[in-house]
Amino acid sequence: MSPQADNKIQNLVEMLVKSYREEADIIKIEAKNQINKAVVVDIIEDLRCLIFAGFFGRKRLKEDGLEYYVGELLENLLYNLEKQIRRALRTRGGREVRIAAEAERITHVFLGKLPRIRSMMATDVDSSFDGDPAASSKDEIILSYPGIYAILVSRLAHELYQLDVPLIPRMMTEHAHSLTGIDIHPGASIGHHFFLDHGTGIVVGETTIIGDYVKVYQGVTLGALSTRGGQILNGVKRHPTIENHVTIYSGASIFGGDTVIGEGVVIGSNAFITKSVPEKTRVSIRNPELQFKMDEKNQSVEFQQGEFWDYVI
Amino acid sequence: MSPQADNKIQNLVEMLVKSYREEADIIKIEAKNQINKAVVVDIIEDLRCLIFAGFFGRKRLKEDGLEYYVGELLENLLYNLEKQIRRALRTRGGREVRIAAEAERITHVFLGKLPRIRSMMATDVDSSFDGDPAASSKDEIILSYPGIYAILVSRLAHELYQLDVPLIPRMMTEHAHSLTGIDIHPGASIGHHFFLDHGTGIVVGETTIIGDYVKVYQGVTLGALSTRGGQILNGVKRHPTIENHVTIYSGASIFGGDTVIGEGVVIGSNAFITKSVPEKTRVSIRNPELQFKMDEKNQSVEFQQGEFWDYVI
Amino acid sequence: MSPQADNKIQNLVEMLVKSYREEADIIKIEAKNQINKAVVVDIIEDLRCLIFAGFFGRKRLKEDGLEYYVGELLENLLYNLEKQIRRALRTRGGREVRIAAEAERITHVFLGKLPRIRSMMATDVDSSFDGDPAASSKDEIILSYPGIYAILVSRLAHELYQLDVPLIPRMMTEHAHSLTGIDIHPGASIGHHFFLDHGTGIVVGETTIIGDYVKVYQGVTLGALSTRGGQILNGVKRHPTIENHVTIYSGASIFGGDTVIGEGVVIGSNAFITKSVPEKTRVSIRNPELQFKMDEKNQSVEFQQGEFWDYVI
Repeated sequence: MSPQADNKIQNLVEMLVKSYREEADIIKIEAKNQINKAVVVDIIEDLRCLIFAGFFGRKRLKEDGLEYYVGELLENLLYNLEKQIRRALRTRGGREVRIAAEAERITHVFLGKLPRIRSMMATDVDSSFDGDPAASSKDEIILSYPGIYAILVSRLAHELYQLDVPLIPRMMTEHAHSLTGIDIHPGASIGHHFFLDHGTGIVVGETTIIGDYVKVYQGVTLGALSTRGGQILNGVKRHPTIENHVTIYSGASIFGGDTVIGEGVVIGSNAFITKSVPEKTRVSIRNPELQFKMDEKNQSVEFQQGEFWDYVI
Repeated sequence: MSPQADNKIQNLVEMLVKSYREEADIIKIEAKNQINKAVVVDIIEDLRCLIFAGFFGRKRLKEDGLEYYVGELLENLLYNLEKQIRRALRTRGGREVRIAAEAERITHVFLGKLPRIRSMMATDVDSSFDGDPAASSKDEIILSYPGIYAILVSRLAHELYQLDVPLIPRMMTEHAHSLTGIDIHPGASIGHHFFLDHGTGIVVGETTIIGDYVKVYQGVTLGALSTRGGQILNGVKRHPTIENHVTIYSGASIFGGDTVIGEGVVIGSNAFITKSVPEKTRVSIRNPELQFKMDEKNQSVEFQQGEFWDYVI
Repeated sequence: MSPQADNKIQNLVEMLVKSYREEADIIKIEAKNQINKAVVVDIIEDLRCLIFAGFFGRKRLKEDGLEYYVGELLENLLYNLEKQIRRALRTRGGREVRIAAEAERITHVFLGKLPRIRSMMATDVDSSFDGDPAASSKDEIILSYPGIYAILVSRLAHELYQLDVPLIPRMMTEHAHSLTGIDIHPGASIGHHFFLDHGTGIVVGETTIIGDYVKVYQGVTLGALSTRGGQILNGVKRHPTIENHVTIYSGASIFGGDTVIGEGVVIGSNAFITKSVPEKTRVSIRNPELQFKMDEKNQSVEFQQGEFWDYVI
């Protein structure tokens, strides 16, 4: 490299190091390693291989190789997950020996929940199959449905969130968000037989509670209605409660921590809800009036749209 | 590892293996290997290198190296695609020798369709260039437009869908969905000069039929209107028919298997359509009435929005 | 391989090569290498490691290793970025020696802007933290928020866009679009303290101007209102101007190059705006009227929704 180019680089280095002194909030200088996002993604993949065994691993799963298959994945997980949890816990400070013990405890409690998560996921796959005329088999759902992936990651992340692990749960759900367009906060609590169809644009806020047999379509927001509280609202119930057997069609928005959508309710496409809805009600927006124009004669035409209550994409 | 830790792992292994017995639907134990998603993604990439030759491969494409370039990609594809199709066909059962012959036949028929798909893609690139003032060159469109990627994968997957290959077509379109936010079912039939702008949130259902010169913007749903048929509706025409030269602006939803959007129709942003629209009609929602509040005087203000019919983002 | 199979491949090769002659627009045969998308992604990652130093690199960042850390990343960047910019500039033609000099100049000017981009990003992280009750730390925001990633890439790409680099800026923002569902054109100009929450489905057009302290929620479109100009409109201001301290809630659409959203305005969810809004105004759609049906008695129920102005998800 020429001395001139060398000099230019030296200038850039100095400018950046100066910037690190000035904006110290967005730089991380530590004695210990940081959480590694690539390892967090590997952990999700290993967990998926345990839950949907035989579908995603590189190796063939044989009847007499089950224990070996599980054992190998679990050893990997114990090592990687404990290490990343330790790093996450360190961001809260405390003695290293306590952090290590706590990381070990959390890892084992979490892994002990996997059989329960498997049972939940089996109900979610059932719901996707029963609810979607385009599904040709359960294999197809497990192998390709983004809703199943987002629900899986959100169930896993929710357990770590409840075990009070910092950073990792949100990194996990944001990874799923990136792959699916489905943004479920790890704080959200979700019942069994959950079905997300298409999924892109779905937002489920931190304090949402979702019952059993709930179906949610693309573009649905379960959000907060507030008065600019910002950090003051941290921890407050801000998002709705959705009871059992509720269906929420595409583009609908439901806001507010006191909003309860009662059992069996059907919320129509694009509805905007900020109050509770009593059980067994079907809610629909009155279709926005349509205007018609013909290119040639420029005449107005009436256009009657019937009422409708159920649509599945 | 300590005997205690070893014991904990052993417990976890037993719990999971027990769970595999109980939830047998979501585990895959087979004598043969499963479809490998990573290979399906490689297949898409190799097909893209064939279609948009010279744009994506790692190697420089030279005039006198064309045949070698194509030959090498095709040999890869023949090997990988045939193998994955064989695995997909096995999920339906049948004799191995028939499966192998069928996989070979399908692979060759499919690859023979590539020149036709190239011609279609050339029209799609033209449409993107002509329709988008922000496009600075066709190279930019091929290298970076998510709509082009989603259309490409959906044209490829549709051919495999029509050849009745299980699992792989949907895995392909869901991969594109993951990368683009555009969810086109491989069953959808799409004409030439198709233009998807921005694309995030677009949903095109399985039995949709789309004509030539159609433009679709972000957040559009072409969906089904139904009465909770679930699996009973499998195979029934449930999604709309869009005729030639139709433009559908952002956020519009069109539902129903009998809904036909006639030639030359323009559907305005956020319109919600459940009935057929005659040709050459421009449809717009009457803009939702707006409410205004001034912070200081709290007075209401009138706000006139003109009519409008064409907007391009 | 059997002679028969060999023959089939030869036929496919010939068909494709023939197709390359016929559809020459979508093939790239050149004496020089093309822009490599994987390297463009590596460049984004290296730039992110410089901006959020210590958060994403594989190596631990130590106080006394700062200069070395920066120097190593910068040398990588100088090499890779200059090379890709050279390839991009070549698509416009011209003498190789001028292209090389121009690529070197642009690369240095661009890298010199990094400290300024760091300062801007620090304000964006602050805005995310202050505005989102679900954010538990700034680390969480940097490590996992898609909005921060999309803003970062868009700030970087905007500098290259202003330096008139072809192809690469849009490849960068489309990579971010793919990962986040947030589609910001590199031409858009964005002030400090920018906050994108959730983000999926956001579209920000090429000629948009955004002030300081602006918040934008999922599904918002800042688009163009036009009369089918296509390429004729290239370069014309087609997208809105958003002044300081504006908040735009989920699903709202704002169209038109003459549309100015004044300082301090709040735009409610799903509003559809095609005219300017004076400063300090709060705009909301009158909630679409809701229809209720009870399953059992089929009776209509009144449902009062209050007015509301602020909601945060």
